[in-house]
Amino acid sequence: MFFASDNWAGAHPAINERLLKESTRFAAAYGTSELDLAIEQRFNEIFEREVSVFFVATGTAANSLALASLAKPGGVTFAHSEAHVIEDECGAPDFFSGMRMSPVDGPHGKMDPRHLVSRIARYPQDAVHHGRATAVTMTQATETGTIYTLDEIEEIARISHEHGLPLHMDGARFANALVNLGATPAEMTWKRGVDVLSFGGTKNGCWCAEAIVFFDPAMAKELPFIRKRSAQLFSKSRFIAAQFEAYLQDDLWLDLARHANAMADRLRAGLNGSNTARLAWETRSNEVFAVLPKATAKAAGEKGAKFYDWLEPKDMAEPVSEQDVLIRLVTSFATTPDDVDAFLRLVAAG
Amino acid sequence: MFFASDNWAGAHPAINERLLKESTRFAAAYGTSELDLAIEQRFNEIFEREVSVFFVATGTAANSLALASLAKPGGVTFAHSEAHVIEDECGAPDFFSGMRMSPVDGPHGKMDPRHLVSRIARYPQDAVHHGRATAVTMTQATETGTIYTLDEIEEIARISHEHGLPLHMDGARFANALVNLGATPAEMTWKRGVDVLSFGGTKNGCWCAEAIVFFDPAMAKELPFIRKRSAQLFSKSRFIAAQFEAYLQDDLWLDLARHANAMADRLRAGLNGSNTARLAWETRSNEVFAVLPKATAKAAGEKGAKFYDWLEPKDMAEPVSEQDVLIRLVTSFATTPDDVDAFLRLVAAG
Amino acid sequence: MFFASDNWAGAHPAINERLLKESTRFAAAYGTSELDLAIEQRFNEIFEREVSVFFVATGTAANSLALASLAKPGGVTFAHSEAHVIEDECGAPDFFSGMRMSPVDGPHGKMDPRHLVSRIARYPQDAVHHGRATAVTMTQATETGTIYTLDEIEEIARISHEHGLPLHMDGARFANALVNLGATPAEMTWKRGVDVLSFGGTKNGCWCAEAIVFFDPAMAKELPFIRKRSAQLFSKSRFIAAQFEAYLQDDLWLDLARHANAMADRLRAGLNGSNTARLAWETRSNEVFAVLPKATAKAAGEKGAKFYDWLEPKDMAEPVSEQDVLIRLVTSFATTPDDVDAFLRLVAAG
Amino acid sequence: MFFASDNWAGAHPAINERLLKESTRFAAAYGTSELDLAIEQRFNEIFEREVSVFFVATGTAANSLALASLAKPGGVTFAHSEAHVIEDECGAPDFFSGMRMSPVDGPHGKMDPRHLVSRIARYPQDAVHHGRATAVTMTQATETGTIYTLDEIEEIARISHEHGLPLHMDGARFANALVNLGATPAEMTWKRGVDVLSFGGTKNGCWCAEAIVFFDPAMAKELPFIRKRSAQLFSKSRFIAAQFEAYLQDDLWLDLARHANAMADRLRAGLNGSNTARLAWETRSNEVFAVLPKATAKAAGEKGAKFYDWLEPKDMAEPVSEQDVLIRLVTSFATTPDDVDAFLRLVAAG
Repeated sequence: MFFASDNWAGAHPAINERLLKESTRFAAAYGTSELDLAIEQRFNEIFEREVSVFFVATGTAANSLALASLAKPGGVTFAHSEAHVIEDECGAPDFFSGMRMSPVDGPHGKMDPRHLVSRIARYPQDAVHHGRATAVTMTQATETGTIYTLDEIEEIARISHEHGLPLHMDGARFANALVNLGATPAEMTWKRGVDVLSFGGTKNGCWCAEAIVFFDPAMAKELPFIRKRSAQLFSKSRFIAAQFEAYLQDDLWLDLARHANAMADRLRAGLNGSNTARLAWETRSNEVFAVLPKATAKAAGEKGAKFYDWLEPKDMAEPVSEQDVLIRLVTSFATTPDDVDAFLRLVAAG
Repeated sequence: MFFASDNWAGAHPAINERLLKESTRFAAAYGTSELDLAIEQRFNEIFEREVSVFFVATGTAANSLALASLAKPGGVTFAHSEAHVIEDECGAPDFFSGMRMSPVDGPHGKMDPRHLVSRIARYPQDAVHHGRATAVTMTQATETGTIYTLDEIEEIARISHEHGLPLHMDGARFANALVNLGATPAEMTWKRGVDVLSFGGTKNGCWCAEAIVFFDPAMAKELPFIRKRSAQLFSKSRFIAAQFEAYLQDDLWLDLARHANAMADRLRAGLNGSNTARLAWETRSNEVFAVLPKATAKAAGEKGAKFYDWLEPKDMAEPVSEQDVLIRLVTSFATTPDDVDAFLRLVAAG
Repeated sequence: MFFASDNWAGAHPAINERLLKESTRFAAAYGTSELDLAIEQRFNEIFEREVSVFFVATGTAANSLALASLAKPGGVTFAHSEAHVIEDECGAPDFFSGMRMSPVDGPHGKMDPRHLVSRIARYPQDAVHHGRATAVTMTQATETGTIYTLDEIEEIARISHEHGLPLHMDGARFANALVNLGATPAEMTWKRGVDVLSFGGTKNGCWCAEAIVFFDPAMAKELPFIRKRSAQLFSKSRFIAAQFEAYLQDDLWLDLARHANAMADRLRAGLNGSNTARLAWETRSNEVFAVLPKATAKAAGEKGAKFYDWLEPKDMAEPVSEQDVLIRLVTSFATTPDDVDAFLRLVAAG
Repeated sequence: MFFASDNWAGAHPAINERLLKESTRFAAAYGTSELDLAIEQRFNEIFEREVSVFFVATGTAANSLALASLAKPGGVTFAHSEAHVIEDECGAPDFFSGMRMSPVDGPHGKMDPRHLVSRIARYPQDAVHHGRATAVTMTQATETGTIYTLDEIEEIARISHEHGLPLHMDGARFANALVNLGATPAEMTWKRGVDVLSFGGTKNGCWCAEAIVFFDPAMAKELPFIRKRSAQLFSKSRFIAAQFEAYLQDDLWLDLARHANAMADRLRAGLNGSNTARLAWETRSNEVFAVLPKATAKAAGEKGAKFYDWLEPKDMAEPVSEQDVLIRLVTSFATTPDDVDAFLRLVAAG
């Protein structure tokens, strides 16, 4: 019953197998091997256009270096107020990019377009005192389990581009959003206006596979130097490439995300039918937020269920009562129906 | 015949096996799992004292974050003029630490203590215009295949500490130096005055395992924040821990280094007995520098031998002639005697 | 009728006279002259204890370097959401300190202590993902013309220190607040818990005189290097010292601030008695915020009155109507009663 | 007998007078007043083309921000090994630009073009590990009193541009070089290939007047934000403008530099004719380096002469003996013939 986070899961056997095969060979270092180049080509196919791809060690690195590549002195980047870049990266995006992250409100992890417009208006291009609007970053799927529709992405992109701002997408759970929307990678990104993507594999079955994807290679020209100076260029880079090869092979990545989402559906259905618990808000990805009695949560924890308490957001329709607690449950490629059912039984037991 | 670098090798089977085992489990993320903690304990044993250990993604990260933890505003760090931190890390140590790297000369990759003293003297502690001496970093084994003796380490440490400067050791090839000296990890580090160590596993059989080791845990208190802000905290950190577990088990790491050094010895012996080639200077680790006719090098390359041409250092006893070329050959845990012999035959063929 | 800002004023004759005298002498550079040292001593007297004083070029520099001296990696500084460090310094405090500025709400420029507590709680000292609470900065007088009482300062300081956070005060308009409260410099700072002060002279009659004042010299030990590395060490530093000498002589600085405040009082009284305009909210320093018909504001502007339109804050008791506009009026040491009366006549004219 | 540095001098009466006049007026802040704009126009005339001008607080700021405007990630800037940006600015150029300063050798403060070429060659444009050559900076007049000829400037510029590198000139003593060469400002800069200039007025009679001058305004487009974020935008900027107005009026700046140089000539002549002292090397600006008996130097110091001991450079034709000492003497606009003669008498006294 490991629902603490999808990064508590291990690695998928197909990915392990590919790593094993890679381990017995010699090959060129620092991302110049044939395998590295082949995987870059594979990203072109996945995204249906020529892209520039850069492997890095962590999702925080992907976000931070992507934003660094868009940075200007005095720049301000707009992100949802609960975004990972604001709340969970210890200031790394600010450190690497030299920009400030400016919070944009909106219900359940999604930026409200009107609020985005009003925030951007505070930082006009000649505002030497305020600083200037420079980039927008959105998270798909969001930190709170919701998913932007394709039209919503396009709306954020339209606003960004109208103000001359490139749009970055934090795709730590890219696949979970993609399979939910039934869209292609191209449709969920550049076809709707996304300029740069943090493409995460770690949470979805790799053990360490994160990439920055530029849809306009011209925007990527500083990234090789930014990456090296940021200590993010792996010498044995091909072991990242190998993970991505297996991950992208025969739609494995989509299958893994579908499985994680299905496990979350099973949780959602079970909690919806529960007498003791309720869903805190509607989610669609592999994250589920539930309100349940503190005693129930405590008992479940004591019986081995792993999950985190969550800070109550400002916009809860029905606030969390004194007796209750808000928790986050995350499923992964490795979650089993038995895990889910065991947890639901604990909840039902009250 | 892969002699380009030890980071062209793959990963050792024992390490793969341990990774496979790890991949089927769930465990806490971000370095808080039982395995992470167990490996930290293992480092205590290896170094015979309580140390603080931090895993990072690359050797550049280990060096840069170690120096960042020692940094002061206006600080200057002293390193050999051919050190990795100066020549091969794209300014990452400067970027993360905010310090300048000041070059110290010395024959074949080892700092001349007298020159170190005179460089430090240029940056007194109240020298607000020059900047102030703040740290010293040495590389063991060096970039040019040589190895500081224990007494030489102690001499560098003595000078550093006399001036109030902590001493960092870049141990990307720590094991290769260790087995050559026949010393214990403690003897080659804190017992001789080293304060912080970049402990590299990647070049010696892991696929990605680098650690920063503080011999005084009090010096490490900022590192958790420095690491996270630097985007170097792995979510599935335990996969680094797993590599280190296998690496340190039953002296595997020392055996792998002994093998690499032995292969270099075989190369050295062969080249010493050669009519066409000569050793450029004496080395003791798994790096060999040879001078051979350009035509011979070219022919060897065409027959599949991989190596890099090397920039002639200022202090070559016998300069490289017009007809000749200076090359670097690096052996690894995966180099075979057959590889070495095949290469030597190509050289002998002229 | 120059009410755009107090930094539109020139310099006071007594300050000019002192500068003239200084200009004919030779003296040691970079803050080491006898005059520099004498002025440092003068600050000790003004603040009734041994302080450490550092001259810098701008108020933004004073704030940024003060915060840089308090910084930790991953650090977060709390400031009112409308504070100069957040809104008007182009990210300089973030750039120099490496910290993020976290906004705290509160009516009319003053941090609400309860909101400060809840913001600090978001960043506990071991929160490697969020970042950690590191410093608090408050503005006295505030950006919106209000003034913290001594008890309010003490309350902010108490909260800060309870959480181990040093308290910085942005005193760009320090003197204006001081004379309004009738307090001594010591009473408005360290006696109530302020640790570091940006002491501004430029807006109150100097042409360029800003200082960072540390009430605990031990906290200042990195500042000489921070300042030099930040390009803020004047070679002819004694010309700053000379301005401060005249400024602090015979309470000139207090007289100038009293005058500016009195001119603001005259404005406030006039606007309060006006049929056409009203005070937007109550202020006590040399800043006045007024709501008046757009046509009236336009006409006044056309007749030479200088002032800025102001963004309507969220917490206006009586919102600004469509026909009206919110403006800011700032008086200075150089404002005359005639200026004020001329402006009031324009307003009365409608 | 103040020969310690030209920044020990005060300010010229004409500049004071202009400041006095400015102090009685109100005017727009932050560099937007009519006077600020008029002085920008004046720089166009002085340099015979449209330039972009930015006032900053210190020469270190001028150099650092100029280089920041040329910076690229992983960038390397080449400067003479004794340049102010390397030796005397506490790492500020590195801090603001994020680039490393790479030392180029050459006799007496002037970069040897061949050595510059070989240094640039170490950092090719695709050298992600080394870092990449990004800018060149030269000092005119140099730190050691010498002056690049126009042809020498052109040669440095040619090499820079051949490698795609913009050329910055540190003109802290611009005027002293200019009058020595008998060139126009245009001839000593953009007509010979200089792209950006630190134009110093402080050492030559202002009390604080430093400017960055871009000869191609397109290169300056980030500077307004860089300057504000660097805390270098003066609120009462027009007091810098006022100094420059007087400084540039009726060739005052050239007259002041001619005077300083003439005083240095007088020193040089006197020392050349001395039995006790000798010139350490030939200089042409307002700096003189002399070798004299330690006892003589000590005696002169005790009688009130101010000067600094100097570190013996590697390339002294005739080394400094044990009995002797190398000193630096700097003249300024305020040095009198009597000062010089008094000093020479002390030297003659032995």
